[in-house]
Amino acid sequence: MYCVKVELKERSYPIYIGEGLLSDPSVFPLKKLDKVMIVTNSTVAEYYLKLLTDTFVKIGCQVEYVLLPDGEQYKTLESLNLIFTALLKSNHGRDTTIVALGGGVIGDVAGYAAASYQRGVRFIQVPTTLLSQVDSSVGGKTAVNHELGKNMIGAFYQPTTVVVDTLTLKTLPKREVNAGLAEVIKYGAILDHSFFEWLETHIDDLVALDLQTLQHCIGHCCQIKADVVNRDETEKGDRALLNLGHTFGHAIEAHLGYGQWLHGEAIAVGMMMAAVLSEKLGHLSFNDVARLERLLAKANLPTVSPDGMTPDDYLPHMMRDKKVLAGKLRLVLLQSLGQAYIADNTDRQLVIDAINHCSQFD
Amino acid sequence: MYCVKVELKERSYPIYIGEGLLSDPSVFPLKKLDKVMIVTNSTVAEYYLKLLTDTFVKIGCQVEYVLLPDGEQYKTLESLNLIFTALLKSNHGRDTTIVALGGGVIGDVAGYAAASYQRGVRFIQVPTTLLSQVDSSVGGKTAVNHELGKNMIGAFYQPTTVVVDTLTLKTLPKREVNAGLAEVIKYGAILDHSFFEWLETHIDDLVALDLQTLQHCIGHCCQIKADVVNRDETEKGDRALLNLGHTFGHAIEAHLGYGQWLHGEAIAVGMMMAAVLSEKLGHLSFNDVARLERLLAKANLPTVSPDGMTPDDYLPHMMRDKKVLAGKLRLVLLQSLGQAYIADNTDRQLVIDAINHCSQFD
Repeated sequence: MYCVKVELKERSYPIYIGEGLLSDPSVFPLKKLDKVMIVTNSTVAEYYLKLLTDTFVKIGCQVEYVLLPDGEQYKTLESLNLIFTALLKSNHGRDTTIVALGGGVIGDVAGYAAASYQRGVRFIQVPTTLLSQVDSSVGGKTAVNHELGKNMIGAFYQPTTVVVDTLTLKTLPKREVNAGLAEVIKYGAILDHSFFEWLETHIDDLVALDLQTLQHCIGHCCQIKADVVNRDETEKGDRALLNLGHTFGHAIEAHLGYGQWLHGEAIAVGMMMAAVLSEKLGHLSFNDVARLERLLAKANLPTVSPDGMTPDDYLPHMMRDKKVLAGKLRLVLLQSLGQAYIADNTDRQLVIDAINHCSQFD
Repeated sequence: MYCVKVELKERSYPIYIGEGLLSDPSVFPLKKLDKVMIVTNSTVAEYYLKLLTDTFVKIGCQVEYVLLPDGEQYKTLESLNLIFTALLKSNHGRDTTIVALGGGVIGDVAGYAAASYQRGVRFIQVPTTLLSQVDSSVGGKTAVNHELGKNMIGAFYQPTTVVVDTLTLKTLPKREVNAGLAEVIKYGAILDHSFFEWLETHIDDLVALDLQTLQHCIGHCCQIKADVVNRDETEKGDRALLNLGHTFGHAIEAHLGYGQWLHGEAIAVGMMMAAVLSEKLGHLSFNDVARLERLLAKANLPTVSPDGMTPDDYLPHMMRDKKVLAGKLRLVLLQSLGQAYIADNTDRQLVIDAINHCSQFD
């Protein structure tokens, strides 16, 4: 078992990463008679709800659950209210614990519910997708969507504990594993060159779901993100580096309609565009760009734009990015592989060239 | 002008109290070109929206407003969403300011919106009812109701500034002024015997809306509450004392349906029940109970249960109170007039006796 400590003073918490942790009562900060509400969806519930419930029952907890519909389109105030209704119907008090069992959507909605129910109750994250294990379960961002914008309603709210059971990746669709690897590769690219090299050596083991390799990899990513969040909890500075590829990637997701491409797939192409742009600005070598492209391809991720999508399709979405300041585009670019920076006011024609470079033409 | 400072380290803020402050640009922490969203309802808007808008325009702000339907029954997630929609439609970013212009409902909903919009934006309170001036605008509690419970969904979120214009009380219905006086009397009863005595002397001036007396009274109440909040921001301890009468009072509101009795009216009866129970436990004298009853009556507040409401109508609601721990009722009771305490596990029959004592039988 691997343990990463997220240091945020009185709101510090541990992330436990290991094989079979869903069945290990010792990693959960619960005791006899504690009331617990598990928030999950029907897909995840089928595999893991009974297993986790049994673990909590072994501790002596009173366990209930609420099922949310599965999918990003249900990351809404209505789903949030389903959780509140379940809690109130069973008289859960301020001493209750909400447990998120699932991917990023479940974690975001359940976390915001925990932040809001009676103005804040205890929250445990049990992320079951690679993406949520390395990204959304670290850092305390919780949110639901509004019809006019993604993640517009939420709170910064830290969990008490995060429990990552690597076995859950065995039942995850391959495409979602790969999408998670896009965020893994991102950590290497923005902040850690030696981790990037480690990934070049171990990418096949990761794709093949070797659990020891995955455990090391997830632990390392959580450590990187924990360090960043520690320096910048509410995203005033450094934390923005975590958005490498996201400004381009969000444009792909928004243009295609959310749910067509997975988030990680769009981010993979976005990172390629950021890398090509960084090369055009004289930072990266051609060889560095090729290394990133090779690594993404080995993780079965796309490295070129969706069919027919042009710079004109990207730019309007990109200008709506939360990083835009005073109408000027701000992008995360690479100084080198392992070192990202924020670029203000990048030449618009170079951005268009980079998008074109990563597009498929017949 | 009276100024109370609420001390919460980097989240400290001032409360300004005075006559005509809605027209005084100097008390608002806003500058030229700031975007402002005023949240109010049609009743309050008719009297004060133009006045406040003019003040902000004078500063050079871009001012918009959103009207919520008037009444406690609209303190819901749906009303919250009206605010988010208004903000998103006009592209308000993280640097926007939400201003609550109205009573407790407006303050609670607008405050929770400010806590949640893009995970937190600036918030200014302009309370226009006596209740919100002495209570809900101090301390950072924000919330909406759920159909199964009051204030069950919310956040602790501090405003940047609170501006109390005593002139607004001149347009407030008398019944609401009196309901506000219930909370004023509560401060004396729980924490400040000499303020209780001051109230016994000045209650007629307060009922008659003498502005100088009101300004002193509001300032003193804010100071008492600010001190309590300072000691215990997130209600782990002392802050619970502010709930004197609230466990009984919420049961009245829930049983009758919200909006039948005003909050302060229900709290007045709840305080009587707590006082009677304290007398049965040997703390208060009969004379102390009578003093409280007399003071409430002078403020034209009820001191007995609604017609026909029995202990069986109270208890299920009371067990859903946020103070309930491990299924046990916890009540705020009085050691003496001016000194409250938390009683765990009070004898159920005594609670029933106290409710019966304050009920009207034919």
